[in-house]
Amino acid sequence: MKLGGNFFEDLGPGQRLINPVPRTITEGDVALYIALTGDRNPTRCSDEFARSLGFERAPVADMLVFHIVFGRTVGEISLNSPGNLGYADLRFLRPVFTGDTLRAETETLGWRETSKGDTGVVWVRTIGFNQRDERVLEFYRWVMVNKREPSVPTGADSAPPMPAEASLAQVSFPRITRFAASATGGDRFWEDYDAGERILHPQGMTLEEAEHQMATRLYQNTARVHFNQLQQQSSRHGRRMVYGGHIISVAQALSFDGLENVLGMAAWNGGSHVAPTFAGDTLFAWSEVLGRIDLGREDIGGLRLRLVAVKNADPSREEISLRLAGDDGRERYDPRVVLDLDYVALLPRRAVAG
Amino acid sequence: MKLGGNFFEDLGPGQRLINPVPRTITEGDVALYIALTGDRNPTRCSDEFARSLGFERAPVADMLVFHIVFGRTVGEISLNSPGNLGYADLRFLRPVFTGDTLRAETETLGWRETSKGDTGVVWVRTIGFNQRDERVLEFYRWVMVNKREPSVPTGADSAPPMPAEASLAQVSFPRITRFAASATGGDRFWEDYDAGERILHPQGMTLEEAEHQMATRLYQNTARVHFNQLQQQSSRHGRRMVYGGHIISVAQALSFDGLENVLGMAAWNGGSHVAPTFAGDTLFAWSEVLGRIDLGREDIGGLRLRLVAVKNADPSREEISLRLAGDDGRERYDPRVVLDLDYVALLPRRAVAG
Amino acid sequence: MKLGGNFFEDLGPGQRLINPVPRTITEGDVALYIALTGDRNPTRCSDEFARSLGFERAPVADMLVFHIVFGRTVGEISLNSPGNLGYADLRFLRPVFTGDTLRAETETLGWRETSKGDTGVVWVRTIGFNQRDERVLEFYRWVMVNKREPSVPTGADSAPPMPAEASLAQVSFPRITRFAASATGGDRFWEDYDAGERILHPQGMTLEEAEHQMATRLYQNTARVHFNQLQQQSSRHGRRMVYGGHIISVAQALSFDGLENVLGMAAWNGGSHVAPTFAGDTLFAWSEVLGRIDLGREDIGGLRLRLVAVKNADPSREEISLRLAGDDGRERYDPRVVLDLDYVALLPRRAVAG
Repeated sequence: MKLGGNFFEDLGPGQRLINPVPRTITEGDVALYIALTGDRNPTRCSDEFARSLGFERAPVADMLVFHIVFGRTVGEISLNSPGNLGYADLRFLRPVFTGDTLRAETETLGWRETSKGDTGVVWVRTIGFNQRDERVLEFYRWVMVNKREPSVPTGADSAPPMPAEASLAQVSFPRITRFAASATGGDRFWEDYDAGERILHPQGMTLEEAEHQMATRLYQNTARVHFNQLQQQSSRHGRRMVYGGHIISVAQALSFDGLENVLGMAAWNGGSHVAPTFAGDTLFAWSEVLGRIDLGREDIGGLRLRLVAVKNADPSREEISLRLAGDDGRERYDPRVVLDLDYVALLPRRAVAG
Repeated sequence: MKLGGNFFEDLGPGQRLINPVPRTITEGDVALYIALTGDRNPTRCSDEFARSLGFERAPVADMLVFHIVFGRTVGEISLNSPGNLGYADLRFLRPVFTGDTLRAETETLGWRETSKGDTGVVWVRTIGFNQRDERVLEFYRWVMVNKREPSVPTGADSAPPMPAEASLAQVSFPRITRFAASATGGDRFWEDYDAGERILHPQGMTLEEAEHQMATRLYQNTARVHFNQLQQQSSRHGRRMVYGGHIISVAQALSFDGLENVLGMAAWNGGSHVAPTFAGDTLFAWSEVLGRIDLGREDIGGLRLRLVAVKNADPSREEISLRLAGDDGRERYDPRVVLDLDYVALLPRRAVAG
Repeated sequence: MKLGGNFFEDLGPGQRLINPVPRTITEGDVALYIALTGDRNPTRCSDEFARSLGFERAPVADMLVFHIVFGRTVGEISLNSPGNLGYADLRFLRPVFTGDTLRAETETLGWRETSKGDTGVVWVRTIGFNQRDERVLEFYRWVMVNKREPSVPTGADSAPPMPAEASLAQVSFPRITRFAASATGGDRFWEDYDAGERILHPQGMTLEEAEHQMATRLYQNTARVHFNQLQQQSSRHGRRMVYGGHIISVAQALSFDGLENVLGMAAWNGGSHVAPTFAGDTLFAWSEVLGRIDLGREDIGGLRLRLVAVKNADPSREEISLRLAGDDGRERYDPRVVLDLDYVALLPRRAVAG
């Protein structure tokens, strides 16, 4: 691995990288994840509830698995990134338990220099494995990366096509015989959500520097923009930026109120970090139901959801549109929107309500 | 569970609520508890010492058990609370160990609208259970809750009587044969404390936003006032409020210096959060010995203590009275007092000093 | 233990103290250590990698062992210390694993009142033991301690000689047969480092109050200067000081980039906290190779390194000298230098590269 990390020029397509530093996930990571994000899903915070669903004990939160796998890739891909941009075709393939050791491999797929010329976008595909070399997570992401030589054009211009939707062929969840909703506090099952509904999650969460730094270090994600205030002072925003994945986790945790019976994430069709977030910002979230997906199982179904996070505005108290028409007639995200994630959640069906 | 939580109007007496989201306590929670509060009691931070007392391994700190049980109840009782007021007859009934899963049930006992009419006080009784449905904790509490319709009077006025003292009939602690005070650093046993003594705990602890937020999220206590700065800006104090339970934990941890041989809490007779605490405040504590309680055991005894926490004043350096006489002749708490807790600690007796 | 801790006058030579509060190290401590410091060494964060080196599972990070042992000694030695000064002949004698319980014993070796007369320096030797009474760590340290009676001279003036180098007779590390550098991302082995090289570690880390307070509480180090802002307001710096050990941990974590294949610390020859660090400071680090040490083993060797931490200046971007000549011709540390640590790291030799 290069000291100081790769720059855009180093990340041309066709490289297969074995990302260093395998990581064993422990009960300590799980507790910190709860303390830093506010996660309350009983599937992963109660061994008893997890056993009632057919697990041997509570699996690790899907987003914690994502962060650990993602963290492996930062040293080679995004150490010198001013911001992660988006994701496609992300799939959680297998539950992870404390004691498992995760590692990652990443393939570079394409690159394109930005018009300004000092940065470029790099497309990669990452696979996360456990200690038995079983795949636990796969995803595409694209990320802005600084150039080593901002003034030297690279001519890089090969953006690869990204899958529009994630395959759900390999959804891994135990067969549920009975779902005790008294443990979640939710009374809505898969059949009770209809496309078009917008669920306004009622809570807000203010972020602190120590919190996002601790979360990001826990995942061993070392991207400079999150930690180095001396460097960030002279950046565009003048501040440390919050790791985008932390925003997804906080938004997901906020979404528990209104989506109490969600069992976990199966896949992401796509997602974008629409705007940066900083310490002091207060996050809110809503979920839009995009549709129900029949998984051919009688116990659980898929719910396609758009999870939107906004900052410093409470969608329960003021109407916020996802997009606004600009003066030029083009639609743009409302400037308060920071996350737009299109994902598939797993929910119990009424047949297993008990 | 109602999206957005219950308001005062929803919390009339006679409801029996099974509070959602069971929670398995892990070594991660224990480490975070130490990191966030400064707990140093070897009974719970040393497996070796705990074994010397007859435990199989270190039990979970009593206050961590309290926080986890309390946290279960917030969604239904105090999500929309501007402040928790007090407790009565709280009893720790059984030790909890990592790996145990806790859940809670709460009964609403009474309610009274406040004179201003925009809030009311709700009285509840909560029982915490482990995964074997054994009771581990019971307590009464009363809490201020916002009304959904501040301008519509409810006429609610049925404050229930609260027990003045906690019963000590069911104190659960292994039989000790030898207490090695070299492990605690303390040289005082049960017989060495006399009613009337005031122990000035010498240390102070300044609180940070990230710390109280992490603690409160760890307990999955979601009350809005602790997390949502956007909302709090327009509140009376303009700031996020620190969860009152965090104050008890920090004060208890500060009290280790001077009460080194305390084995843990048996019960609370009563307690009040006298004034709110905010990030930036520095906490100090003293303990007043209210009396010794003979538990009919030769190894341990009960010590009735008043634990007082004050903010931004060091009782070792300036004399602070618990109460001051106002101009109207009525006694009020000194405005720097934030906690007044009347509890029973367990201490080894001289017979087991070794 | 004295309520309020010992002062300089209490710490005359020849005392043997059994430091209170044994502490079991758990997976929670390990996760917090990663979250607070940014440690990424796979030897201690991957059970799989640790097994490939001959451990049964991942050992606890050397610096976490140091902090826990050090923390035991604070109540008696440095509760009333305005700053820890230095270390000599520190040796990690045996790996520590989660579940182990550590305790400490400390002997006072010498003391010297400072010229100003309000403080003095105390020299001590501390030994850390595990639950089998095996030594895991030994070190000398000297620390400034406040006097109880600043105006009463003690005449204390018996500074003991300190060892100039640590003995490496007892290096404890399993016999390695194969070191998979793909797990660390590093391509340099013991033979690849030569005396005189300066490795500029590319990252910087900004410190927050909540972070250093959580770290220091985790280690149950209660020294007042780290926690009590009310007291510190009237101190020389007006602020809480960061525990010096936290600086070593952060600098060591930063040094992973460039020293990826380091297996851990074997010993410190000596170290000094050259200047205080405060929340808001951004830390950077470099390592100077002082020499290779042949341990008589074919699998691993010792690398003598000088780890230097500086604040608010990036040595990758500006030339920083360790020492500057003053107007009086005397050399002093550059005022941005906060740590100067002379230690021995263990590295795999090329023979085991695989």
